[in-house]
Amino acid sequence: MSFSLCTSWVWMLLFLGCTLGQSKQTRSAGSDVRNCTTVPPYLPSTVTNTTERLQALRQHMQVYNVSAYIVPATDAHMSEYIAEQDARLAWMTGFTGSAGTGVVTLDKATLWTDSRYWIQAERQMDCSWELQKTVWIHSIGEWILQEVPAGKNIGLDPFLFSIDNWESYCQALQNSGRNLIPIETNLVDLVWDAQKPPPPTHSIYALSDEFTGNTWQNKVSDIRTQMEKHSKSPTAVLLSGLEETAWLFNLRGDDIPYNPVFYSYALLTKSNISLFLNQSRLTQDALQSLTAGCPGPLCVHLEDYNQVKAHLENYVQGDIRIWIGTEYTTYGLFRVIPEEKRLQESYSPVMTTKAVKNTKEQGLLKAAHVRDAVAVIQYLLWLEKNVPLGSVNEFSGARYVNQLRQKMDHWRGPSFETISASGLNAALAHYSPSNVSSRKLSVDEMYLTDSGGQYLDGTTDITRTVHWGAPTPFQKEAYTRVLMGNIELSRLVFPSGTSGRMIEAFARQTLWKVGLNYGHGTGHGIGNFLSVHEWPVGFQSNNVPLTTGMFTSIEPGYYQDGEFGIRIEDVALVVETQTEHKVGDKPFLTFEVVSLVPYDRNLIDVRLLSAEQIQYLNSYYETIRHRVGPELQRRQLQEEYEWMRSNTEPFSQGVLVAASLGLLAVTTLMSEFLSNLQA
Amino acid sequence: MSFSLCTSWVWMLLFLGCTLGQSKQTRSAGSDVRNCTTVPPYLPSTVTNTTERLQALRQHMQVYNVSAYIVPATDAHMSEYIAEQDARLAWMTGFTGSAGTGVVTLDKATLWTDSRYWIQAERQMDCSWELQKTVWIHSIGEWILQEVPAGKNIGLDPFLFSIDNWESYCQALQNSGRNLIPIETNLVDLVWDAQKPPPPTHSIYALSDEFTGNTWQNKVSDIRTQMEKHSKSPTAVLLSGLEETAWLFNLRGDDIPYNPVFYSYALLTKSNISLFLNQSRLTQDALQSLTAGCPGPLCVHLEDYNQVKAHLENYVQGDIRIWIGTEYTTYGLFRVIPEEKRLQESYSPVMTTKAVKNTKEQGLLKAAHVRDAVAVIQYLLWLEKNVPLGSVNEFSGARYVNQLRQKMDHWRGPSFETISASGLNAALAHYSPSNVSSRKLSVDEMYLTDSGGQYLDGTTDITRTVHWGAPTPFQKEAYTRVLMGNIELSRLVFPSGTSGRMIEAFARQTLWKVGLNYGHGTGHGIGNFLSVHEWPVGFQSNNVPLTTGMFTSIEPGYYQDGEFGIRIEDVALVVETQTEHKVGDKPFLTFEVVSLVPYDRNLIDVRLLSAEQIQYLNSYYETIRHRVGPELQRRQLQEEYEWMRSNTEPFSQGVLVAASLGLLAVTTLMSEFLSNLQA
Repeated sequence: MSFSLCTSWVWMLLFLGCTLGQSKQTRSAGSDVRNCTTVPPYLPSTVTNTTERLQALRQHMQVYNVSAYIVPATDAHMSEYIAEQDARLAWMTGFTGSAGTGVVTLDKATLWTDSRYWIQAERQMDCSWELQKTVWIHSIGEWILQEVPAGKNIGLDPFLFSIDNWESYCQALQNSGRNLIPIETNLVDLVWDAQKPPPPTHSIYALSDEFTGNTWQNKVSDIRTQMEKHSKSPTAVLLSGLEETAWLFNLRGDDIPYNPVFYSYALLTKSNISLFLNQSRLTQDALQSLTAGCPGPLCVHLEDYNQVKAHLENYVQGDIRIWIGTEYTTYGLFRVIPEEKRLQESYSPVMTTKAVKNTKEQGLLKAAHVRDAVAVIQYLLWLEKNVPLGSVNEFSGARYVNQLRQKMDHWRGPSFETISASGLNAALAHYSPSNVSSRKLSVDEMYLTDSGGQYLDGTTDITRTVHWGAPTPFQKEAYTRVLMGNIELSRLVFPSGTSGRMIEAFARQTLWKVGLNYGHGTGHGIGNFLSVHEWPVGFQSNNVPLTTGMFTSIEPGYYQDGEFGIRIEDVALVVETQTEHKVGDKPFLTFEVVSLVPYDRNLIDVRLLSAEQIQYLNSYYETIRHRVGPELQRRQLQEEYEWMRSNTEPFSQGVLVAASLGLLAVTTLMSEFLSNLQA
Repeated sequence: MSFSLCTSWVWMLLFLGCTLGQSKQTRSAGSDVRNCTTVPPYLPSTVTNTTERLQALRQHMQVYNVSAYIVPATDAHMSEYIAEQDARLAWMTGFTGSAGTGVVTLDKATLWTDSRYWIQAERQMDCSWELQKTVWIHSIGEWILQEVPAGKNIGLDPFLFSIDNWESYCQALQNSGRNLIPIETNLVDLVWDAQKPPPPTHSIYALSDEFTGNTWQNKVSDIRTQMEKHSKSPTAVLLSGLEETAWLFNLRGDDIPYNPVFYSYALLTKSNISLFLNQSRLTQDALQSLTAGCPGPLCVHLEDYNQVKAHLENYVQGDIRIWIGTEYTTYGLFRVIPEEKRLQESYSPVMTTKAVKNTKEQGLLKAAHVRDAVAVIQYLLWLEKNVPLGSVNEFSGARYVNQLRQKMDHWRGPSFETISASGLNAALAHYSPSNVSSRKLSVDEMYLTDSGGQYLDGTTDITRTVHWGAPTPFQKEAYTRVLMGNIELSRLVFPSGTSGRMIEAFARQTLWKVGLNYGHGTGHGIGNFLSVHEWPVGFQSNNVPLTTGMFTSIEPGYYQDGEFGIRIEDVALVVETQTEHKVGDKPFLTFEVVSLVPYDRNLIDVRLLSAEQIQYLNSYYETIRHRVGPELQRRQLQEEYEWMRSNTEPFSQGVLVAASLGLLAVTTLMSEFLSNLQA
């Protein structure tokens, strides 16, 4: 999946990718589904009445002397998915989309969100809320400048804004006479109060050794070595991303939907480890694992989640320097640390170390993808049989693919909300069906499914687009060009240290050539039973350079408004490759695709493929046979096995040649060749 | 040319490109040509004795209470090439390379420069100077931290550092207890004093209307419109890049080698224009042009060059906001402007407007390239005849190509120091021959020539690599892959607004595939009788997105240490292209190559080229015939005309087919096809 990339702590930068070649910007540029000009206004039944909430919020704003209050869609860890207790924007506005920002002034309220959510926002918000169809902080700043007079204050909760986002707001309001004021008491929470969902209570458990790449003690030692080697001599690393603590301590929880993480912070020094969480939720095993080394440098001191700020305030009194990742540390914690005691980098060493999977982690992730391929192959065959009967809709399809995954070993749940979109719904690239509105799948329409699983050994994410009837020539061309883009990036050879941004256009080139494009990023990192969108790997400008051991999705697409949508997504491992020559000491790299599900032959126009692309495809199909075949047979899924075999038949040499030449060239050639032979 | 991109105000960022896939880093990692351990030390005769200069500088440092003093290689305008009066680093160190930074402490002196210059630096510097083989400010900072105790000061001339560079030094020394002190009196100048070359005295002249894209009055009006439209309401634009004032006012001068610019600043407000220069140097025409509109908003007020700071200090007293380009405005001017009165962007609107050539400017630049192609074709034919006679060396070749250009209409000089490199010298990608050491050209070696002209209508820059004998298979492969890279980028179709950084890998891909690469950037903007490296166009991360009307060089290469070097460089115009389909409102773009000289057929292994690449080549050659042919004939250069014709013969369809298939595939195909016919 790609589109929820446009959310939370990275949405600002990612939207760059998400609006590239934007035709979606204007998709719902038409009139609002609400009519707020009549009395009473016309509103869909799906809206939430926010009058009282807004009134109460404004009272608190006056107490705190702010003329505007900014409400983001994230939590104190800049999580992409958030728990219900953190859904402040949704509660305040009625709008439940995953990305957006609300700003409330004393007489207006406005929501900013991206094109995926415009219609949804209009259906969910009452007339107290205006919709702004952009997400640039710059645009939010301009609106604030217009609505709030100079000399007034704009408030926000500093624990819900990353350092980078805080700075963007500062920049937007720079020299304007408006003051950005951090207020540590969350004003929405004051209103929400008793109605607010309680914090999670599920266990926080230790991941079995079988599923971890290393002991947490070895991971901690590695991070400490990196601290010692750093020229700026940090004395501590502050971890505030939930993936960071989960990965470092080999713990998991269920606090956030789709992500097996738990609310926590950690401060790791050379001799001490403080982990901030709700201690009572730790299983006995987890507690035992963390405290086995006590006392000593590998003893984890457990402190309450809410104590992190106080602890930090105390720690910064000493002769210290704290290493922080500015992309996701909140301004609330950042400002506790005096400037001269900060070591600011985009990502903490835990984030960058986690990004490079060791051999064991690579093996685990690959194994999860083999089982996942079995489920997706089962699903594709089931669709092939049932769609013509008219018995499948988007919602039942989504449910079924998850049921298939559920039967697999080590399954723990879906890794994100399944995208299951038929016909024109797939043009809304982030569409998920609901029980109440779901389109019936048909042999006359293209169908896109983007789904993934959480397994104890790895997280998966795969998109396939299929057509069971007669696709139009344009649909075939578009599908084939998307596939060619996927192949061109997947088979690219590039030097170690190349950034994803430098090579992502290889996934677009085949579309660009005929004037097509897609409006989202090309890929994202993925975890070992962690986030489906794992930073800092990917093809965006703020991703780190690609090195061996990183996993990223590769997912070009094409979306024809009101008609159909195509996306072909695989997860791939960055591997070393042997080249014919070699310059320099560093290895050359390429991708090894670990998602193992064949593409839809019905949609491939093989004449568009180059000989090299066909060769690549055949080799990938051979890998599917080799790796998924035995697993299908072991499970006695004979029909699925046959389906897989027939869908991975190599494209023949004759087709290959015809593809690269066209028939006319062939005949020309033949006569030339024959006359040469005669000469 | 590409390598001197690694200099001056952009060198820090560009070196990113310049070290990619670095094999050069280790090229001269061997021992110093100097031996500073013996008494007396062994030194080449080419070194400069800097003992007294350093002693005098250290005395001034003590007066100003600084423990280290940083000496950059640029001038107050962050110029890439500098006048003799600004060659402070060269005078201080003896090292005359175009890029580097010197740091002098009370007991040490160190020069940082990149791999192009390591050997040269060792040959030119005495034992007072150490050489550091890197250019990262981070590394300079680390050295300073090691050499200068906490509590001490580090001095620099704030008028020789851009805002961005100043901030990089601040960052490198951040929280270290060392203080970075701007000292407006240049301490090197205090030592240099009477020996310092005088300022230039040549005329500053108006460019005839025939050679300008618009009147300066219209250009000023356009910039004022952009100021009015800007949401931050700037009241003024400060111009400190020498290209900016030259372009805006349609003036030229000869203050800087190879660049027809003159020392100046300008402050443009909505109602006033202040131009700071040595007024006495203006020709009568130029003075008339500037003052014709006086009094009024299109009257240029002339002030002395040295008055810019005082003028600015006065202007900032008002209710103003000044728009500045942070990439090249000096910290010295920047700090005069209070923070709340700055509008900081990477480039001023003059820089970004200049980057997009209007139709007239495009026509002028193209015309210059046609005449330039005539000179280069003459040169290549002359080489072909004279190299086998053993009568040409690198230096005489360089001199001859410039003599050929000199005969062309509107010629004003070379646009940079000609690179003319035979055999292993070409592996030093930035090598320029001298009269005293120059390799003889031979039919047994590859020869690389990178040269360009300044013409009143445009600036040119072209590189061709040739071999007159029997190249090795690897040389042919490397050349062909460089050519393929040039073609792949040149023929790419991409959406409007794509950044160069996103697509430059298309020029590398064909090399990467077999483990090769080149260690420099892929291209740079170019001016209309202005700089050969014109910002902010190109393929680096700090370049602006590509739009119609921009010109950039495209120049992949390959360098085999100690053996040979290849670079194929063309200048190309960004143009709109019609695509089969089209998504969105914005046009799709591609490149139109305007350098019109055929590539060396002797070095092309046509079997490596795809059918599409051959098609592109044939079409490019057709353009050369169409555009340069008549010019050669008009000049009665019949032999050159024939040479051009034979070197632009289209590659045949037979070759085309063989290239895309290989013989084996052809025979396979034939039998398949025949049996199909029989069936």
